[in-house]
Amino acid sequence: MTGLPFALAPRMTALGGSEIRERMKRLGERDLIHLGGGLPDPILFPTGRFAEAAATILADPAQARIALSYAPSEGHGPLRAWIAARLTARGAPCRAANILVTTGSQQGLDLVAKLVLSAGDTVMLELPSFIGALRAFDVQQVRYAGIPEGYRLPDPAPRLAYAGPDFRNPTGTCLSLAGRDHLLDLADAGAMPVLEDGCYEDLRYEGTPLPSLLALDIRRQGGIERSRVIHAGTFSKLLAPALRVGWIAAAEPVIARLTLLKQAADLASGTLDQMIALALAQDLDTLTEPLRAAYRDRRDAMLAALAEHMPEGVTWSRPEGGLYVWLTFPETIDGGTFAGRALAEQGVATISGGAFYPIEAQRNTLRLSFSLASIEDAHEGIRRLGRLAHEMMG
Amino acid sequence: MTGLPFALAPRMTALGGSEIRERMKRLGERDLIHLGGGLPDPILFPTGRFAEAAATILADPAQARIALSYAPSEGHGPLRAWIAARLTARGAPCRAANILVTTGSQQGLDLVAKLVLSAGDTVMLELPSFIGALRAFDVQQVRYAGIPEGYRLPDPAPRLAYAGPDFRNPTGTCLSLAGRDHLLDLADAGAMPVLEDGCYEDLRYEGTPLPSLLALDIRRQGGIERSRVIHAGTFSKLLAPALRVGWIAAAEPVIARLTLLKQAADLASGTLDQMIALALAQDLDTLTEPLRAAYRDRRDAMLAALAEHMPEGVTWSRPEGGLYVWLTFPETIDGGTFAGRALAEQGVATISGGAFYPIEAQRNTLRLSFSLASIEDAHEGIRRLGRLAHEMMG
Repeated sequence: MTGLPFALAPRMTALGGSEIRERMKRLGERDLIHLGGGLPDPILFPTGRFAEAAATILADPAQARIALSYAPSEGHGPLRAWIAARLTARGAPCRAANILVTTGSQQGLDLVAKLVLSAGDTVMLELPSFIGALRAFDVQQVRYAGIPEGYRLPDPAPRLAYAGPDFRNPTGTCLSLAGRDHLLDLADAGAMPVLEDGCYEDLRYEGTPLPSLLALDIRRQGGIERSRVIHAGTFSKLLAPALRVGWIAAAEPVIARLTLLKQAADLASGTLDQMIALALAQDLDTLTEPLRAAYRDRRDAMLAALAEHMPEGVTWSRPEGGLYVWLTFPETIDGGTFAGRALAEQGVATISGGAFYPIEAQRNTLRLSFSLASIEDAHEGIRRLGRLAHEMMG
Repeated sequence: MTGLPFALAPRMTALGGSEIRERMKRLGERDLIHLGGGLPDPILFPTGRFAEAAATILADPAQARIALSYAPSEGHGPLRAWIAARLTARGAPCRAANILVTTGSQQGLDLVAKLVLSAGDTVMLELPSFIGALRAFDVQQVRYAGIPEGYRLPDPAPRLAYAGPDFRNPTGTCLSLAGRDHLLDLADAGAMPVLEDGCYEDLRYEGTPLPSLLALDIRRQGGIERSRVIHAGTFSKLLAPALRVGWIAAAEPVIARLTLLKQAADLASGTLDQMIALALAQDLDTLTEPLRAAYRDRRDAMLAALAEHMPEGVTWSRPEGGLYVWLTFPETIDGGTFAGRALAEQGVATISGGAFYPIEAQRNTLRLSFSLASIEDAHEGIRRLGRLAHEMMG
């Protein structure tokens, strides 16, 4: 059955591949216009600063000794302190002991899934949601429910809520302040942990930041030690994804248990990577301003092109940050068919929206990303997608 | 019950902390003699070569672009090819498609545990075994059985066999060729995958290398695609553990499924780390010869000191490689008590042997590591341990 000479665990039947990761392999194909995968653009990485940080760390014998040895499982101490200080400055008071450094924020999602989920449990989440989170939950063989509009919790009661309040993958939209409070009300009612995916929160191009779920719940509960929110963050979208440096912020007993799971998962995250991240974090906001400016321009170009080329009846999100625009076609148009034809006939890579729904898929949807396309490519790519949409919508 | 405002998954009750990882935190205490944790000695890391490799990669725009972007989940292509060529040269013919790069070999153990194990399953392993492997298996809420001497498999039939054939942690001993064949016979009889932990196999200081379980099974089955062996390796003990670059070698369908699990676990391993490892791997055997020479001298010093200072009735392993010596006291001496007194009264850090047994603990045991101690420290440390042993054995 499996093509293997031994039996697999039942969880393996729940696990499918990722269209996006597969599509990333096509990134080398130069003739394509890439409006699909939400990869950071390497041209925006501060490569010189990486080189400088690595050289400085490895040239100092005391630093080099630390940089090449195992890091503590909880993470490099000074980096944990930096992260705690940053969250504190953002309205979520916490200490280094509230921080676990993870191998990218994906590992944070995986560890939290292991911490609270068992086969048959229900995860309550936004529809659509980030595919990487769905895969981490799928490994635990869970069911899914959407976040209800009112205060009636799904039945059976969910064991975990998952949300990306800022510019989430795939829609690029934000959860309103009222929506954040509503989610925390539901978590209180269900005594349910909330996994907050904060990986795009520093990619804001306009508008006023909203407090994170962690910040709101700390106020609500009177401190991080009483909060049910588990906040995941990362340097992947700000510095470079290759570092694989993310973090979890949560109450200390949560961090202690996640640390045990991390020891079993990969012992510790890369030390040199953590030290490079810390070196660049010293002026993170200044350092990443050009990146935000570039993405802002690309977003503007994509939104302008959509307004120019899309037929009436197609709608889309107008994100204030992040990397994604979410398109909704009339119900008769299948996003998978559209994405397939866009790639084959128009040479434009996109991602069909259906993949982001674990239940109740709205198949007339499409995810676009503006992270990799030049302004010219965005115009040309959207022009071609508009032509296809006109054709398919008759 | 948990000190948390939400419920944990049942698996969390199976997971204890690691005495070793906790003890590593005491490494900063300079007055201690460290014969405990099996940490590589940072003085032996090729720091200059790390600096050179990082500088070269980041100075070349095309390389830097790759180095700072997400790696493929399967791993950096040229590194996979290098690993496959090395295994092939060691008698285990395979291709790059048979290799998954992992975030240290610990991640390989964790992914394989997820691949085949469910709650209640039995893992068959050597007693004692590596604690990191036990933790990865514990997360799946398994039971344990020792490897039987004959051909009668444990009942119920194990779902996975785990072995470290070369200089394993904690004993430093090797599985004989007959022992390797016996284990593969059992795996054949039980149609059971064998997870081979090869993380010390390049740390041989004398004697003739034996073929790996993977090499033997490839011969036995007629090719890696029909082999049940899943081989885990790492650069952690050769170059530096901070890189977090390990690998799995197995049949392609196994690699495909482990890749799905890796995507859910951390998406990909660090790209710069993988490229640095590949750069240093070009002359790995030459580069690591001084490290083997240093560990050989330290091993010799520890074995000489043991012969000089230990009372009759204490026995120990005489490893041909690796980082560990395994002591067995008379049955009346508890290894935990001994390690506690050694630390408190003698200022010598060791690890009690009981922690390495998931069942049927032989508590009159102790793990020593010679990786971190200078020749002088080994002599002085063992002298003190000998004094304590004399005292405790009356």
